[in-house]
Amino acid sequence: MSSNKKPIERFHPIIPAGGIGSRLWPLSRASAPKFLHDLTGSGQTLLQDTWDRLLPVASPDRIMVVTGQAHQGAVVEQIDDLDLKNLVLELSPKDSTAAIILAAAILAKREPDVIVGSFAADHVITDTDVFNETVREAVEVAATGKIVTIGIQPTEPSAAFGYIKAGDSLGLAQAPNARSVEKFVEKPKMATARKYVESGKYLWNAGMFIAPASLLLEQLEKSEPELHASLQEIANAWDGMYRESVMHKVWPTLKKIAIDYAIAEPAAEANLVAVVPATFSWHDVGDFAAIAELQSAGRRGNLAVLGNTKVLADSSSGILVSETDRLIALIGVEDIIVVDTPDALLVTTKEHAQRVKSLVDALKATGHSDVL
Amino acid sequence: MSSNKKPIERFHPIIPAGGIGSRLWPLSRASAPKFLHDLTGSGQTLLQDTWDRLLPVASPDRIMVVTGQAHQGAVVEQIDDLDLKNLVLELSPKDSTAAIILAAAILAKREPDVIVGSFAADHVITDTDVFNETVREAVEVAATGKIVTIGIQPTEPSAAFGYIKAGDSLGLAQAPNARSVEKFVEKPKMATARKYVESGKYLWNAGMFIAPASLLLEQLEKSEPELHASLQEIANAWDGMYRESVMHKVWPTLKKIAIDYAIAEPAAEANLVAVVPATFSWHDVGDFAAIAELQSAGRRGNLAVLGNTKVLADSSSGILVSETDRLIALIGVEDIIVVDTPDALLVTTKEHAQRVKSLVDALKATGHSDVL
Repeated sequence: MSSNKKPIERFHPIIPAGGIGSRLWPLSRASAPKFLHDLTGSGQTLLQDTWDRLLPVASPDRIMVVTGQAHQGAVVEQIDDLDLKNLVLELSPKDSTAAIILAAAILAKREPDVIVGSFAADHVITDTDVFNETVREAVEVAATGKIVTIGIQPTEPSAAFGYIKAGDSLGLAQAPNARSVEKFVEKPKMATARKYVESGKYLWNAGMFIAPASLLLEQLEKSEPELHASLQEIANAWDGMYRESVMHKVWPTLKKIAIDYAIAEPAAEANLVAVVPATFSWHDVGDFAAIAELQSAGRRGNLAVLGNTKVLADSSSGILVSETDRLIALIGVEDIIVVDTPDALLVTTKEHAQRVKSLVDALKATGHSDVL
Repeated sequence: MSSNKKPIERFHPIIPAGGIGSRLWPLSRASAPKFLHDLTGSGQTLLQDTWDRLLPVASPDRIMVVTGQAHQGAVVEQIDDLDLKNLVLELSPKDSTAAIILAAAILAKREPDVIVGSFAADHVITDTDVFNETVREAVEVAATGKIVTIGIQPTEPSAAFGYIKAGDSLGLAQAPNARSVEKFVEKPKMATARKYVESGKYLWNAGMFIAPASLLLEQLEKSEPELHASLQEIANAWDGMYRESVMHKVWPTLKKIAIDYAIAEPAAEANLVAVVPATFSWHDVGDFAAIAELQSAGRRGNLAVLGNTKVLADSSSGILVSETDRLIALIGVEDIIVVDTPDALLVTTKEHAQRVKSLVDALKATGHSDVL
């Protein structure tokens, strides 16, 4: 394992910055999704944290961001060093395969032997050094012709994540931790999750993939030939004068499919997937309960506080997120979630954090889309 | 007991409209105290409800309001029919004796045999007819030379109120329910309150007094001769050209003392106090938990909602008060209290409703008086 801090040759990270994060309403909105917020109290948004975390392994001109057209302004404003040739704007949400593979195809056209890595814009990783060492190791494995995923060492049984069943060590000198992947498993029931974690063979699937772009494209061609052809058509036009016309013609026709189904699972069956187990701490910040767990959030006793500082919390615990400058007083509320924004207020408990998504569905159904 | 709806002769109600209601922060403020709010969902403020409730027993030109200078505008705006000669403005808060007895003294100067009645502006009484019949009976008793209080039949043991120990029936044909008062008892411990209620001899002291103004003044002269002299000095000047100068000279020197101590208790010892037990429903709306109990508040399932109508409450109970037009979503919070105002937000539970007062004290101590 190389421990220097130089950019990794051939490597080009891709940051898919999509997904509204309904479980984080009313903070996260269609107009201001999760990755555009500071959810950890770091003073930076999740997107900025993701960008900065990649700088030790890739120079700024080699990091691509894929996001929705609506977020163009915010992304460019937040990432000073983003090279506009590395900004891919989606016309509409088409799930992860379209986002990541279009980026990979564009990069492969520019640089045929590029190794790409996909790192979601809305995850929280605190041990940047360990993260970077893990990415270096994954790129070494990818260079041997593998699709490499980074598997997170579970800290507890969780039914909120998919799992990766790790196989034998690959025995690579330059990547001593790398193992084969036996299979990917979708989000299990809690009892199954418990067995997985006890067995020591399962890792959380954090959706991070590192692979030669050409290998990803080959795999997609096998599993989803039409989608592959369409993405290739867009990529071929991307750096020329017909980008807009081809985009508008082809993008709306793309199949929506997650990269797990389109590439990772079929490739695992073909023994083309490896995993590097990660020991850094990782959170997908799926709901407000998860934010409350983050150590870096501001604290008032047992209350995590994000944003507003005019807070009086008397024997209360949980999380308070505020985007207003109102005075906020909590008295004797335990495991509470309070999210205070200029046009909407949410009060729930950590226990019910996952139900925020159904609330957002209810809001859609009752014509309150102005606050979504 | 007379059951007609004509104004009662000699009778002149006084509405002391004071007290911030710290337990109802951030709704109730120094600038907008409890009585200026609609806390029941009736569509009227507590002051307006109090005023309207007295109209069957007194014509509008015979109802006096005593309030702080700061509330002059709001009171006049809310009570169209208030005759300005019946508006007494306090320069600063001086407790209930100064407020009520100044009003009584002014009225006694104008009409020596007047019978006054004091009815707080921030209580909630739902059975107006029964209330009026009770007042008529109390005035009959007062006319026999008594200070008459209206005692509320307890609906439960409560440590939040003072109690009145009722004695024998007065045997008055025109007031068959009237009884003597053995003594007033300050807020008891819960165990004592339970014994009181079981005994059937104790009534809640709701602070309503009906008496000849001259008798109140006589009693005050005996118990607090200086305060009596000062209030008489102001009253003598009130309807003349020196009101302002005398007010500014004398008012700041007044002793702060509750009418219970200055008049009711000594008068009870002198056997001058009677009680008419009341069967109407009465609330002093002391805290948000009390508001939640009021049947007239709007309801979403088990949640009482006052104000804002953009509310989604999923399996939640308690009370939501909102003065903003934000969308408010509550999920799975039980016995919750949420009070949403433009510059302050309170989240607590019914269990902790009484602690709001300490919070207000803490706000004072931490320099947040802009929101008090």
